[in-house]
Amino acid sequence: VAPAGILERLDAGEIVIGDGGFVFALEKRGYVKAGPWTPEAAAEHPEAVRQLHREFLRAGSTVMQTFTFYASDDKLENRGHTQRFTGRQINEAACDLAREVANEGDALVAGGVSQTPAYLSCKSEDEVKATFKKQIDVFVQKKVDFLIAEYFEHVEEAEWAVQVLKTTGMPVAATLCIGPEGDLNGVSPGDCAVKLVKAGAQIVGVNCHFDPVTCVKTVKLMKEGVEKAGLKAHFMSQPLAYHTPDCNCQGFIDLPEFPFSLEPRILTRWDMQKYAREAYNAGIRYIGGCCGFEPYHIRALAEELKHGSWGSGLEMHTKPWVRARARRDYWENLKPASGRPFCPSMATPDGWGVTKGHADLMQQKEATSEEQLKALFDKASKGH
Amino acid sequence: VAPAGILERLDAGEIVIGDGGFVFALEKRGYVKAGPWTPEAAAEHPEAVRQLHREFLRAGSTVMQTFTFYASDDKLENRGHTQRFTGRQINEAACDLAREVANEGDALVAGGVSQTPAYLSCKSEDEVKATFKKQIDVFVQKKVDFLIAEYFEHVEEAEWAVQVLKTTGMPVAATLCIGPEGDLNGVSPGDCAVKLVKAGAQIVGVNCHFDPVTCVKTVKLMKEGVEKAGLKAHFMSQPLAYHTPDCNCQGFIDLPEFPFSLEPRILTRWDMQKYAREAYNAGIRYIGGCCGFEPYHIRALAEELKHGSWGSGLEMHTKPWVRARARRDYWENLKPASGRPFCPSMATPDGWGVTKGHADLMQQKEATSEEQLKALFDKASKGH
Amino acid sequence: VAPAGILERLDAGEIVIGDGGFVFALEKRGYVKAGPWTPEAAAEHPEAVRQLHREFLRAGSTVMQTFTFYASDDKLENRGHTQRFTGRQINEAACDLAREVANEGDALVAGGVSQTPAYLSCKSEDEVKATFKKQIDVFVQKKVDFLIAEYFEHVEEAEWAVQVLKTTGMPVAATLCIGPEGDLNGVSPGDCAVKLVKAGAQIVGVNCHFDPVTCVKTVKLMKEGVEKAGLKAHFMSQPLAYHTPDCNCQGFIDLPEFPFSLEPRILTRWDMQKYAREAYNAGIRYIGGCCGFEPYHIRALAEELKHGSWGSGLEMHTKPWVRARARRDYWENLKPASGRPFCPSMATPDGWGVTKGHADLMQQKEATSEEQLKALFDKASKGH
Amino acid sequence: VAPAGILERLDAGEIVIGDGGFVFALEKRGYVKAGPWTPEAAAEHPEAVRQLHREFLRAGSTVMQTFTFYASDDKLENRGHTQRFTGRQINEAACDLAREVANEGDALVAGGVSQTPAYLSCKSEDEVKATFKKQIDVFVQKKVDFLIAEYFEHVEEAEWAVQVLKTTGMPVAATLCIGPEGDLNGVSPGDCAVKLVKAGAQIVGVNCHFDPVTCVKTVKLMKEGVEKAGLKAHFMSQPLAYHTPDCNCQGFIDLPEFPFSLEPRILTRWDMQKYAREAYNAGIRYIGGCCGFEPYHIRALAEELKHGSWGSGLEMHTKPWVRARARRDYWENLKPASGRPFCPSMATPDGWGVTKGHADLMQQKEATSEEQLKALFDKASKGH
Repeated sequence: VAPAGILERLDAGEIVIGDGGFVFALEKRGYVKAGPWTPEAAAEHPEAVRQLHREFLRAGSTVMQTFTFYASDDKLENRGHTQRFTGRQINEAACDLAREVANEGDALVAGGVSQTPAYLSCKSEDEVKATFKKQIDVFVQKKVDFLIAEYFEHVEEAEWAVQVLKTTGMPVAATLCIGPEGDLNGVSPGDCAVKLVKAGAQIVGVNCHFDPVTCVKTVKLMKEGVEKAGLKAHFMSQPLAYHTPDCNCQGFIDLPEFPFSLEPRILTRWDMQKYAREAYNAGIRYIGGCCGFEPYHIRALAEELKHGSWGSGLEMHTKPWVRARARRDYWENLKPASGRPFCPSMATPDGWGVTKGHADLMQQKEATSEEQLKALFDKASKGH
Repeated sequence: VAPAGILERLDAGEIVIGDGGFVFALEKRGYVKAGPWTPEAAAEHPEAVRQLHREFLRAGSTVMQTFTFYASDDKLENRGHTQRFTGRQINEAACDLAREVANEGDALVAGGVSQTPAYLSCKSEDEVKATFKKQIDVFVQKKVDFLIAEYFEHVEEAEWAVQVLKTTGMPVAATLCIGPEGDLNGVSPGDCAVKLVKAGAQIVGVNCHFDPVTCVKTVKLMKEGVEKAGLKAHFMSQPLAYHTPDCNCQGFIDLPEFPFSLEPRILTRWDMQKYAREAYNAGIRYIGGCCGFEPYHIRALAEELKHGSWGSGLEMHTKPWVRARARRDYWENLKPASGRPFCPSMATPDGWGVTKGHADLMQQKEATSEEQLKALFDKASKGH
Repeated sequence: VAPAGILERLDAGEIVIGDGGFVFALEKRGYVKAGPWTPEAAAEHPEAVRQLHREFLRAGSTVMQTFTFYASDDKLENRGHTQRFTGRQINEAACDLAREVANEGDALVAGGVSQTPAYLSCKSEDEVKATFKKQIDVFVQKKVDFLIAEYFEHVEEAEWAVQVLKTTGMPVAATLCIGPEGDLNGVSPGDCAVKLVKAGAQIVGVNCHFDPVTCVKTVKLMKEGVEKAGLKAHFMSQPLAYHTPDCNCQGFIDLPEFPFSLEPRILTRWDMQKYAREAYNAGIRYIGGCCGFEPYHIRALAEELKHGSWGSGLEMHTKPWVRARARRDYWENLKPASGRPFCPSMATPDGWGVTKGHADLMQQKEATSEEQLKALFDKASKGH
Repeated sequence: VAPAGILERLDAGEIVIGDGGFVFALEKRGYVKAGPWTPEAAAEHPEAVRQLHREFLRAGSTVMQTFTFYASDDKLENRGHTQRFTGRQINEAACDLAREVANEGDALVAGGVSQTPAYLSCKSEDEVKATFKKQIDVFVQKKVDFLIAEYFEHVEEAEWAVQVLKTTGMPVAATLCIGPEGDLNGVSPGDCAVKLVKAGAQIVGVNCHFDPVTCVKTVKLMKEGVEKAGLKAHFMSQPLAYHTPDCNCQGFIDLPEFPFSLEPRILTRWDMQKYAREAYNAGIRYIGGCCGFEPYHIRALAEELKHGSWGSGLEMHTKPWVRARARRDYWENLKPASGRPFCPSMATPDGWGVTKGHADLMQQKEATSEEQLKALFDKASKGH
């Protein structure tokens, strides 16, 4: 028999464990290009994508998200897509892989859409919605279990996405990549959540751009907003696996370390267990991850929320003083050293200047020519 | 035609790029247990092992090491091996996987042996050698291209291993997991290298336990020793992908963060490129990695030493200020923040006490009962 | 002729540079005891107090505050005062020393009162006011130029003090030792400032407990409150010379490093110049310091706000590479290292538990017996 | 009766506690100019110098060093001496101040000479010795109790100084400002010490340039050298009060933070107590300080080595949780935070380039014209 649907699970109070971010994990494995971040690998290297799905499943994920991030046709074309596969082929291959592995366990398949160049370059609502529609058609045909609209910086675009997704009759989740300050137009998390619920999303929350502490804080604000408006929803969070206490409103994109020197910020298993507990305590029941999450991070969530454990394997280590570390409180109280005595603990986001020149930059959204971009960047940078 | 052998390549001045550490990478992917660190997955989950080999190959590795670390029969039994597969089956499966992927590119297969419980529990030279012999028999039958004796803390055990490996007539490499202070009996790196060369190794060096800076420094001392003795050898280094400026003689095992909170110490790509350059400048031509290395780390070595590049994909990023980071000097000069303002940059190794109680501990080597181990540990700890 | 009074100076837009904290500076010189922090040295070791006044004057201070911190009779008795001098004698000696040195330059003398055990042990308004009255009588007799009520954690006590001070007809300044969260009863900085102005203070602001960044932020909130209420005042700040980004509502008292390990937090000259500039930009015109300020810190304020300079003496250094540091931008851009690789950059204030047990603790204010204190502390600590 | 002499004290096994560095302490108080670092204040502002002597005496110093650092005529002229006082007047005034305060307690007066421009500009041995002779004449006339030759970077110049000092018949101490790598010509600490003892010094050691850990290590090497040579001497150390784990051979001069941003490196009292204990355990009996030492640092040495204590005054603090810190183990185990999350813990000394261009630079020693210096610096810097 098919497993219970996502809403049945959440309504029953079950904890749903999401998966981790595919673009970052596959970039490190050699199957995604940093910069474009597009998912051609679903069609070109299915064995690599399948293996990552399987690792998340084995670690405890109960949702397999289709590897269709940035897989709208306009994005694929915009980002140097090789043309060896059509957008439709990529979306189809991604659905097949997610389903194949989901069937190896008790997992659901979620079809996902994300922000589009169409919106950023000020296309009309109809044009933007048509972009989402193409991906949705594949998801319907491939019979995914529910849909996720994720990684939106502007709640307006997310609302449009939700409206399209709703036409399928499937359950819809929607997550923004925002922090406590709200979306890039300054709409607060509470107001964003209300808009998404009104647009039809049954599950709302955040993903990417910020660390777990910040994401849980943001979802709390969303929850307060929804409750204050007399509405109902389930809540989810899929944060980064990087510490970002020093971020401004655009999150880790603006950190000087993005995307090639984020290593010292990677969360440990214990950091993850704390996240799992805090998310749970905040009333979040769909708990997963985004960029930076590796299978062992998901496993840490599952250990905290479901089956327990705590490194009992260490009791079989050769050195006795390592065996002495096979207990939870050792890891809870440890302050891990960076081994980097010449590095600071905090960074100054590049976004300072950008924040100041924000209005101009956002008004134009995504400029189309290199010259335009350089000009905007220079203008924004002068604010430093 | 078969690719040139390892010695032909090194004699011709070619750079050989090794792979990364399988036990740590597969532990994070859910196929190895921290503590025992044994390679049953070669037989039980070949698709996961094959995928990791393939990622290293695609990243630039020209050697596929068989996933036979800690695969001696005595270790497998000692560490709770499930008995679903014999030691022979595990070693055979590992050879097959390495060969299958090596044939997808221009790579060689290296059969590997490592330190044994037999030696640590003071078995005789004959017994220890018999343990190595069992693995070697598989490597001969499976026609690997050359052999590596790696991860030895006592040069004496490594010499015995080399002597057994030499009986095959294949080229032999030997690496110790030591730092500049020498092996656990205090034999200096220079003397260790001389002993290994005299035992028959054509390639010598270090692997694991220390960061690249420390490993390159140690191999330099080995090279000086070999040259001073009027001998000849090729040199290799396969360090950790963790910064360990604060380690004592036993390396990262003694760090309080080992093995579950090493994240803030992970090397960035740029750290790796610096390592590649420094290793090359030190005269090392077989340059690879060990625990902590992921495929993207090997790719950084290949980019530095072979084909160049530097994040040109970033030029296609959505945000203009991220595009501005698509240049090498940006990353070279960046001091990455940890995002962990409550953590120090250095740790005090647990080994303080252990170092003081070292003599006692090492005399007994590996105690067999839990009680003995606890007693030794307590004794050592009192020295703190 | 006598110099213009404090209000004339501020009304004319002049910048008034305060002095630094005497109790901390004299504790390091061996004349004040950490813990009691009382000013008997004014009478017992006048040469040491005179010398410190003189150093601040030479550095650029235009106000000499009498060294009468914690010099109310109840505090002196409470804190083990030696009885060799009466409270009156101590207050008189402090006035004489301040006047003597003020006359060596263009400086004013300010008589100061601070929080009292009388208030903390819940004495009546009349009793608390009588305590202030005793010190004021000396200030009137010794003809100080104006009065300062400083270091109050509860705005109510500060109001009472201001009311007493106003009876003299002299100008009155009032500063609380609070941060942006307000006083210990939760009264916001804006409301505190309004209360103080209504009580009669012409100059209001903060001193002690927090670093310059936090203090300027707090005074800004005060200024907004005063302006919103349609009132007028001058503003002052006399912060710590310690970085305290990690403090909670009670400031540096709760830091684990207080008071004997604050060294790594000491502000540099450049940090001070930034403070001076930020305070000025925030509309603050009475700019001085408190605990941790040494004469060279005051000099940095004067250099920034008045006469400029920038280490031109370095041009005469023996080493050429040190000569190359004789320029402002070198110091502006320097991120000074701590030389402490085993220490974190932030601390967790002890006050966590205290904050939780806050209500109980504050209700009882200052317990009179050791037993009571221990009990309260234990109670508060359990909240950790 | 006069107190026992320095040698009688040391021969009897008594611990001698030195004082702290006057130039740095008085620079912060406004009486010395950073760069020239010359001691005109002895004549121009005797009250400030007297007060500092007195604070060190009260803190526990049993030696008052005359404030005659860099007081050779050639240095005073070279460094823009105001000409209001002759070199002789400055040296005389310094002797009088030291004697006046020494007589307030049980302290000895030590006349001090330091490195000269004469030596650095390659003057002859006779000329250099004549420079020392002028200062010595004053010390003899003023009847100091013993002599110290300190702050020499080249042992040769120190030997010359000792030879001149010996002509007085007074006890002679000699300290170099070197680390474990030896003097600037590469003479090892052991060899340096032997040379100084053979030249006639009865007390040898190091002062300035490095932190206590490094200085104790260096004096240990000196002691080993002296003992190996079959000679006898007393040993002394007067280190910086700054942590310098990241220094190269020229010490803190080369740190980017020198001299205006060293604050985060300042040692705490507990750091000082550890230093005192380690110096004692290393066989050093003349234990004092140099740049960065304030009176409370000397007091920490005295508390550790002589009369005990441990912040018992804290028991009288208002807040109960601060009272709980009135115990030694609290401070021993504390890792003080810097409150500087954007700063690293270690610095890269400027000396990298300088070290590479070292030979050239040292050959020319002190160039006389600005042009020469700039050229040398540029040359050295290119090595970076």
